[in-house]
Amino acid sequence: MESDKLAIIVAGGSGQRMGAAIPKQFLDLGGRPVLMRTIDAFLQIEGMRVVLVLPHAQRAAWDELCARHSYAPNIDIANGGETRFHSVKNGIALWRGERLIGVHDGVRPLVSQETIARCYAEADTFGTAVPALPSVESVRLVASDGSNRAIDRREVMLIQTPQVFNSEMLISAYNQPFTPLFTDDASVVEATGKPIHLTLGQHGNIKLTTPDDMRAAEAML
Amino acid sequence: MESDKLAIIVAGGSGQRMGAAIPKQFLDLGGRPVLMRTIDAFLQIEGMRVVLVLPHAQRAAWDELCARHSYAPNIDIANGGETRFHSVKNGIALWRGERLIGVHDGVRPLVSQETIARCYAEADTFGTAVPALPSVESVRLVASDGSNRAIDRREVMLIQTPQVFNSEMLISAYNQPFTPLFTDDASVVEATGKPIHLTLGQHGNIKLTTPDDMRAAEAML
Repeated sequence: MESDKLAIIVAGGSGQRMGAAIPKQFLDLGGRPVLMRTIDAFLQIEGMRVVLVLPHAQRAAWDELCARHSYAPNIDIANGGETRFHSVKNGIALWRGERLIGVHDGVRPLVSQETIARCYAEADTFGTAVPALPSVESVRLVASDGSNRAIDRREVMLIQTPQVFNSEMLISAYNQPFTPLFTDDASVVEATGKPIHLTLGQHGNIKLTTPDDMRAAEAML
Repeated sequence: MESDKLAIIVAGGSGQRMGAAIPKQFLDLGGRPVLMRTIDAFLQIEGMRVVLVLPHAQRAAWDELCARHSYAPNIDIANGGETRFHSVKNGIALWRGERLIGVHDGVRPLVSQETIARCYAEADTFGTAVPALPSVESVRLVASDGSNRAIDRREVMLIQTPQVFNSEMLISAYNQPFTPLFTDDASVVEATGKPIHLTLGQHGNIKLTTPDDMRAAEAML
């Protein structure tokens, strides 16, 4: 079957907050590097093609890791860019006409098949689908003068990936000039005036950022 | 030494989201109920007195749990109220003149000695101290019409406990009439016009809400 879904998996982090010498997407999670788990989660979906975006400087280490794990997935690789925005753009350059494009963090290996499938299905219906969970914690906003104030946490949604879009919508959004307010794909698409459709996120779909996250992810495996 | 610090530990949840028959604060975490771990974290601090706020309906189960674990901490117990606001108020009623009052979630057992000590020390200096961490995830705000928009996540702080205050400041704040916008103690104090001092939160100081959280907490122990 021809693929009608593209996943762009962005593996950009250097792992500074992890305190590890190797990039966090290469860390071992239950006997297998984080990034391989992430890629495999997408390759299990029918009609899915994967483009991995990796900093050029990490390419040799990744190839070595793949050799060591006898891992030879059928994916394409693009070089990472200066920012996440530029990395995604490099991934989009390898689009082959799939109807839907999802963008996913390389360090979210615990994403479920159900979450991936639902995000693509809802994007097919609504044009966009972004997984979100309400905050379990109270939320405060910090102003530029350093002061802070409470906001109603019932209004606050914490955003995960994969963020999935109609391909033409995403590609045209990424033709905009970059601004630092683009922290994820939804914010890029939103800047073109398109509404963002939120779908239920997955509690265990955590972004591995700190050593505590790695221990938590091991426990959830 | 006389205690100059009071901790009000609020154990109100019913555990519905946990899918467990017993309240989440009574669940076993590495061989010991969550709530006992939380209480002990505070009792280890010099000059700390603890008031536990517990729904009256859970009192018998708690007493039984204490008997089973031969747990007889030197604490006082207040009944829970209709909302978290009313529960904290019931705890405040047992104040004995301590200079500082901290309020802590019963289901945050992994709070460190360092975090507790620092929150009380900074509240002694600034009048308030509330632990906060920036969001690692993008954030969207949902409007009353259901639409949503991105906000700059660098402005967003996720709030933990213990939230510690000068006692008179907290007590006078809790004399205000209740509104549903009071989701934590900082929001109650802020409504009296006092600025809130944020201090660095602790990444592992998670609020146990779902079974995944329990597994993560076990791993972090």
